[in-house]
Amino acid sequence: MTLAEIYKDLRSDILKLEKEIETQVGAEHCVLRAASNHILKAGGKRIRPVFVLLSARYGQYNLEEIKKVAVPLELIHMASLVHDDVIDNADVRRGKKTIKSKWDNRVAMYTGDYIFAKATEIATFSKYSEIHPILAHAMREMCIGEVEQLRDQFITEQTLRQYLRRIKRKTALLISVSCELGAVVSEADKSAQHALKWYGYYAGMAFQITDDILDFVGTEKELGKPAGSDLIQGNITYPALYAMQKNPEFHRKVQRYMKNPGSYPLNVQESVTIIRESGAVEASKALADQYVNKAVKMLKGIDESPERSSLSKIASYIGSRNF
Amino acid sequence: MTLAEIYKDLRSDILKLEKEIETQVGAEHCVLRAASNHILKAGGKRIRPVFVLLSARYGQYNLEEIKKVAVPLELIHMASLVHDDVIDNADVRRGKKTIKSKWDNRVAMYTGDYIFAKATEIATFSKYSEIHPILAHAMREMCIGEVEQLRDQFITEQTLRQYLRRIKRKTALLISVSCELGAVVSEADKSAQHALKWYGYYAGMAFQITDDILDFVGTEKELGKPAGSDLIQGNITYPALYAMQKNPEFHRKVQRYMKNPGSYPLNVQESVTIIRESGAVEASKALADQYVNKAVKMLKGIDESPERSSLSKIASYIGSRNF
Repeated sequence: MTLAEIYKDLRSDILKLEKEIETQVGAEHCVLRAASNHILKAGGKRIRPVFVLLSARYGQYNLEEIKKVAVPLELIHMASLVHDDVIDNADVRRGKKTIKSKWDNRVAMYTGDYIFAKATEIATFSKYSEIHPILAHAMREMCIGEVEQLRDQFITEQTLRQYLRRIKRKTALLISVSCELGAVVSEADKSAQHALKWYGYYAGMAFQITDDILDFVGTEKELGKPAGSDLIQGNITYPALYAMQKNPEFHRKVQRYMKNPGSYPLNVQESVTIIRESGAVEASKALADQYVNKAVKMLKGIDESPERSSLSKIASYIGSRNF
Repeated sequence: MTLAEIYKDLRSDILKLEKEIETQVGAEHCVLRAASNHILKAGGKRIRPVFVLLSARYGQYNLEEIKKVAVPLELIHMASLVHDDVIDNADVRRGKKTIKSKWDNRVAMYTGDYIFAKATEIATFSKYSEIHPILAHAMREMCIGEVEQLRDQFITEQTLRQYLRRIKRKTALLISVSCELGAVVSEADKSAQHALKWYGYYAGMAFQITDDILDFVGTEKELGKPAGSDLIQGNITYPALYAMQKNPEFHRKVQRYMKNPGSYPLNVQESVTIIRESGAVEASKALADQYVNKAVKMLKGIDESPERSSLSKIASYIGSRNF
C-alpha cells in the first residue's frame, strides 16, 4: 500500500470528521461561528485525526466513538494555533489571514478559549471515561510548552535537550495522545495501546523536527509564510542551533539580533542560506530519522497487519515530507 | 445563624480548599507558578467554593470529593479573570497588579490556558462522571458571554434583556453549577440538585447586578479600581442603562463618548454622580432583590434545615453586600 492509497482509504472518514468539526464549531454566536469556521477553512493536514483513525483499526473500529476523541484533538490543535497567532502577532497562517488580523486579539483569545471548551465538552460524550485525564494532561503540558517557548524566545544559548523538551510538549504529546486514544476507544488491547502511544510520541517528535527544517528549506508559497520566520520571531529551532554551533560568525550575528532585534536586524535571506549551507538541514533530518526509526520500532510490539504497515509508512513519510 | 457564623463554620474547609488550589497551581514551570500564585494571593471572595460547600451539606458531605469540583470551579473563575485582564488592559485588580501588567499579555494568555487545563484535569479525578458535561458546558457558555461582552462594548443602545443574558453567561451560570455540583458530588437527591441549581442561578444574577452597582457606589479602596471603571471601559451595565433612560443629556454624553472615546472624554466623577442621582442604584437594587427572592423561593423545594437557612441568608447578603 502506498501513502496515497493509505490516505485514499481514510479520505471518506476524514471528510466525516471535518463535517463534524464544522457542525460543532457552528457556534451559537455569530462572531465565534465566523471566527471558528475561518480557521477550519484554512485547512491543515489533519494529522491528529489521521493518527486516531489508523490506531483505531487495532480494535473495534467505531466511527461514532472515534469522533468523540478525534474531533476534540483537532479542535485542541486549532485552539492552540489561534492563541499562537495572538502571541506571534501573525497576520498570515497557511497562506490565509489569521483570526487575529481579521478581527482582533481579543476575539482571537476568546475564540481559542471557546474552541478549547468545546473540545472538552465533545469528549465528555465519550463512553470511555479514561480518555479525560489523558486529554486534560495533554492540554496542560501544551500550555507549559507554550510558556517554555516564550521563555526561550530570543535566547541563543540553548541546548538540544531544551529544544527537544519543548517540542515534546508543544507537538509530540498531542500526536501521542491521538494514537493512544484511537486505540483506547476501539478497545485495542493494553499492549497495543502502549505501543501506539509511544509510536505517536516518536512520530510527533519527527513531525516537529521536520516542520522546523521546512521553515528553512520551504518556499513562501509552500509554507504560507516567509522562510526563516521562526528565526526572525526569536524561536530557535534545531537547524538554527546547529548552524550557530558550526558557524561562529553567524552565531554572533544571531546573538546580536536576539539581544536587540530593533537595532540589529537580521538578513533573513542570508541567514537561511547560511543555515542551509552549514549542514544543519542534513543534521536535522538525521535527528528526525532517529525518531522515525524509534517510532517504527515501537510498532514491532503489535501484530503485523496492513494497518501496521500504514503506520510505518506514515512515520517514514513524516520524516521526509516536504510540505 | 448570622452570616458571620455561616462563614466561620465554613472557614476551616475554605482554608483547606485554598491550600489545595495553592498546591495544584504550584506548576511545573516557574513563570506559571509565579503567575498562578500571584492571582491566587490576590484573594477574592471564594464565593464559588462557598456555594459548593453549602450545597454539599444536602447529601453525604465528603470534602475529598467536594475538592474535585470546588477547586476546578474556583480555578475556572481565576482563569477567566486572567484572560479578562488581557482584554481590559487592566493593570490593577482587587488592588493588586495583574499578571498582565506584572509580566505581559502573552504570559497572561497562557497562564489562563494553563489554569483552565488544570481545572479540567482536577475534575477528571472525580468519581462522578456526570460533572464533566456540566462543567464543560459552563466553560463554553462563559466564553460566549465574554464574546458577547466584547460585541456589546461601547454600544449604548442595549436592552435590559441583553444585559441579563450577558451576566447570565458571564457569572450566574458558574455559580449555578457550583451549587449543582456540590449537590451532585454529595449524592443529594435529584429534586435538591434541581432546586440548588436554580437557587445558584438566581443568586448568581443578584451577585453580578450587585457587583455592577458597586462599580458606581464603591470607593476606589473598596473596589480595588476607580469607581465608574466599567463605564469608562465601555461596559454598559444596568445602572448606566437606567440613568441614560432617565437623563437624556447624560445619554447623549455617553453616546458621544462611546462612539469616539478619544475625542470626547467622559468625566468619570460627574458620570458617577449623575448615575447615583438618577435613581439607578435603587432600581438596580430592586432588580437584584427580585433575583434574591427567586433564589430564596427555590429553596422551598428542599427540606428545612440549618443549611437551607444559611443559603437563604447568603442570598440576601449577596443582594445587599457593599464590598
